[in-house]
Amino acid sequence: VEKVDLTNKIGKAEYHKVMQELTIKMGELQRQARQMDIPITLVFEGWGASGKGMLLNKLIQALDPRGLTVYPMNNATEEDKLHPYLWRYWVRIPQRGRVAIFDQSWYQRVLAERVENLIKEKKWRKAYYEINSFERQLADDGHVIVKFFLHISKAEQKKRFREIEKDPEISWRVTDVDWLQHKQYSKHLAAVEEMIEKTNTDYAPWYLVETYDKRSAIAEVYTKVIHAIENKIREIHEKSEQNKLYQPVNKKTQSSGSAILDKIDLTKTIDKLIYKPELAKLQGEIRELTYTLYRRKIPLIIVYEGWDAAGKGSNIKRLTQTMDPRGYKVIPISAPNEVEREYHYLWRFWREIPQAGNVVVFDRSWYGRVLVERVENFCSTEEWTRAYEEINEMEEQLVESGAVVLKFWLHIDQEEQLKRFEERKNNPHKQWKITDEDWRNREQWEPYQHAIEEMLLRTSTTYAPWTIVEANSKYYARIKVLKTLIKSVETRLASK
Amino acid sequence: VEKVDLTNKIGKAEYHKVMQELTIKMGELQRQARQMDIPITLVFEGWGASGKGMLLNKLIQALDPRGLTVYPMNNATEEDKLHPYLWRYWVRIPQRGRVAIFDQSWYQRVLAERVENLIKEKKWRKAYYEINSFERQLADDGHVIVKFFLHISKAEQKKRFREIEKDPEISWRVTDVDWLQHKQYSKHLAAVEEMIEKTNTDYAPWYLVETYDKRSAIAEVYTKVIHAIENKIREIHEKSEQNKLYQPVNKKTQSSGSAILDKIDLTKTIDKLIYKPELAKLQGEIRELTYTLYRRKIPLIIVYEGWDAAGKGSNIKRLTQTMDPRGYKVIPISAPNEVEREYHYLWRFWREIPQAGNVVVFDRSWYGRVLVERVENFCSTEEWTRAYEEINEMEEQLVESGAVVLKFWLHIDQEEQLKRFEERKNNPHKQWKITDEDWRNREQWEPYQHAIEEMLLRTSTTYAPWTIVEANSKYYARIKVLKTLIKSVETRLASK
Repeated sequence: VEKVDLTNKIGKAEYHKVMQELTIKMGELQRQARQMDIPITLVFEGWGASGKGMLLNKLIQALDPRGLTVYPMNNATEEDKLHPYLWRYWVRIPQRGRVAIFDQSWYQRVLAERVENLIKEKKWRKAYYEINSFERQLADDGHVIVKFFLHISKAEQKKRFREIEKDPEISWRVTDVDWLQHKQYSKHLAAVEEMIEKTNTDYAPWYLVETYDKRSAIAEVYTKVIHAIENKIREIHEKSEQNKLYQPVNKKTQSSGSAILDKIDLTKTIDKLIYKPELAKLQGEIRELTYTLYRRKIPLIIVYEGWDAAGKGSNIKRLTQTMDPRGYKVIPISAPNEVEREYHYLWRFWREIPQAGNVVVFDRSWYGRVLVERVENFCSTEEWTRAYEEINEMEEQLVESGAVVLKFWLHIDQEEQLKRFEERKNNPHKQWKITDEDWRNREQWEPYQHAIEEMLLRTSTTYAPWTIVEANSKYYARIKVLKTLIKSVETRLASK
Repeated sequence: VEKVDLTNKIGKAEYHKVMQELTIKMGELQRQARQMDIPITLVFEGWGASGKGMLLNKLIQALDPRGLTVYPMNNATEEDKLHPYLWRYWVRIPQRGRVAIFDQSWYQRVLAERVENLIKEKKWRKAYYEINSFERQLADDGHVIVKFFLHISKAEQKKRFREIEKDPEISWRVTDVDWLQHKQYSKHLAAVEEMIEKTNTDYAPWYLVETYDKRSAIAEVYTKVIHAIENKIREIHEKSEQNKLYQPVNKKTQSSGSAILDKIDLTKTIDKLIYKPELAKLQGEIRELTYTLYRRKIPLIIVYEGWDAAGKGSNIKRLTQTMDPRGYKVIPISAPNEVEREYHYLWRFWREIPQAGNVVVFDRSWYGRVLVERVENFCSTEEWTRAYEEINEMEEQLVESGAVVLKFWLHIDQEEQLKRFEERKNNPHKQWKITDEDWRNREQWEPYQHAIEEMLLRTSTTYAPWTIVEANSKYYARIKVLKTLIKSVETRLASK
């Protein structure tokens, strides 16, 4: 942890001179970051009475409120608790070009929650890993992340608490919890040290700021933030220079034959006479299972991906037909809108993560990143390449938080797709379902096939496996999805 | 309340035939509504065990999930309770072209909450008015609203509760609360009748649907929804036909001289030597007051409007300088983005309403509707004309819910504006503040002046008054805002 030498306090006159410069610089950099679409995340943790409020407000004053949001992260709400731990932070990440300031943050799990035994050791140990992954994902997406821990000694804290308590107007601000934490100062300190050791990274550094002298603390925070933004801007400029120098060679994706898709037996089918009663039986089971999930507060996340016209819509309809409408949601995913494009690509999915006990069905999903966005060059090679790991990490967190995650790839062949496209074209009730884009996508069959293969290989995990669904027969596909789902949920219910 | 004659139950064969037609029709209408940007709001209330879940799911099955959201409105969360009553519904209104289905709704206040004495009579009496205003505002904005109350008799309810209790898999669904409500059936029934009487309107009709026979209930709900959408589509077509026939004459806004603005004494000023200590003193008071508001859970909403370069930004900075950053937010308002444009224009402001105890400062606000949107013809005459009432209604609801609402018009004259524009142009640190748009707006001084006058006249209310701030002197303007704010908040604190 880097520290500024504070042996000399800053004098008032010098402070005002320095601050005037830093304030102007900060304003300029915020505007530049805005123009360059750089999101900035600032984290503030610290001891009670370390002056966080004062310091935060000083920082805010230098920033344009038009580009800033402060998030005081108090205790988790009921809604927060029904979601994975990082959910409440994911939904608050800054938009490109904006600043988000977190007053307390995702570090509470390895600080107060840990020390006060509010969670099990396994959970907070896991949190280091989740936090580093979260911050790395943001940094990879171009975020500036700076984290401050405001530090005072135990003696100083006691002195400050006493001073606050003397003033009847503000004495209520020192609570029993504060005194309790004060008594456990050394336990908290050990947690702080471990936290910094485990989460101080190049992409999201910690700064321990001593706040004995307000002025030097303020100047230090300003300086660190300014440096971090300047570095990012320099880095972007250097990269763009490099890109000018070395024109990347556009390598054609090599079609390496099809290892998985070609081996799928698409002749599988099921007779209508068997299908009908079977469907009704399975739907009844699904209904009961979703009630059980609800009572046991287990969230269920179902991802549907598949070729155009593979029958996702009608499959989802059969799945949800008997579910209680209060307990499930179908989220259809298309191209991100203007606002969604301003965030990390996973943001819009984090926002839809079901709360404990509910079911969310994604009709297409975050896998768009490694399918359509990859094939159509909507994102860079670097972006879709790292997406596999990002997706695996997200799904692991969902499962860790208690969710069942199931992913279905609905597979049909080219002939079957053509047949269905023609059918849609000729049926006045279905014409709206078919667009020029569908025909265009069809011509890209090979690159899609390649992307699908790689997706299946790299994101089928023990905790969130893919199920390939032979979907030339819609009946067969529906029954297979329902059966797979029932089996997975039952296994999960039996296991814990 | 309209009722379908249900003396004849629908036979199974007939039902399937009818439903096939209705389902196709529903799908078509949803797509048409989507293309025509019609938002659709469906409300479902009803007795326990009246079959709401089953009926809702049947309805959902006919709709494209891509355009649909179901909101099961359970008990209000902590966050909901810290906001005005309608807040949780406002933030969930459907986007243009989408369907929102509310399973329980804003009517709970005049149903369960009323009957079970969870709120005071004054509050639920007031709710009729707030609800009608809410629905009228949505309808005026083009929403289709249909409301269903699912009805069974007391005896039937008892029978159904008993049946559910017999099945061990689902017996948990009948709770003590259900039985309690059952005992008070007649009290609830009286509330239902009054509710329908008071809130059954042309723009948001109620339908009482008896659910003794599932099939006829389903067919009835489908039919009513279909009719409502068809009517809206017809209405829109008729309107557009009329518009073709009668080309409206574009009347120039008549500048009727200035009744208010010209009388403002812009020579008011304050000396720097007085300003500095005065500012510090007032800021100290503001800090204490905001803590008191926090403890007493009173939300504070401050609106800043004013000419370009009137000094809103620096004024807001002085206001918030000493506030606790965890308790306030500055919300800068510019043109609505792609997503915001898809909603009622008040939606994005409802989303930012502070929770009890917090402060929100709007740097520009919903008044854009009757200022820039009016002057630049971004909305129709009909739209900005009805906006005065809509805004007054919203502010009244905010105040009713306990908020203090203050609105400041920062006034400068044309010469002062020119001086400040030139200053910005010539100061390298301020150049970014001035855009071509500012110069263009300046040329529209007269129409803006007219719009401002009308705004001040029509939206200065006893509960949410405007304060005109003479702002040629920035010092004077800052002191006036702080003093006005302190006085208003102190009055409020003393009153209740």
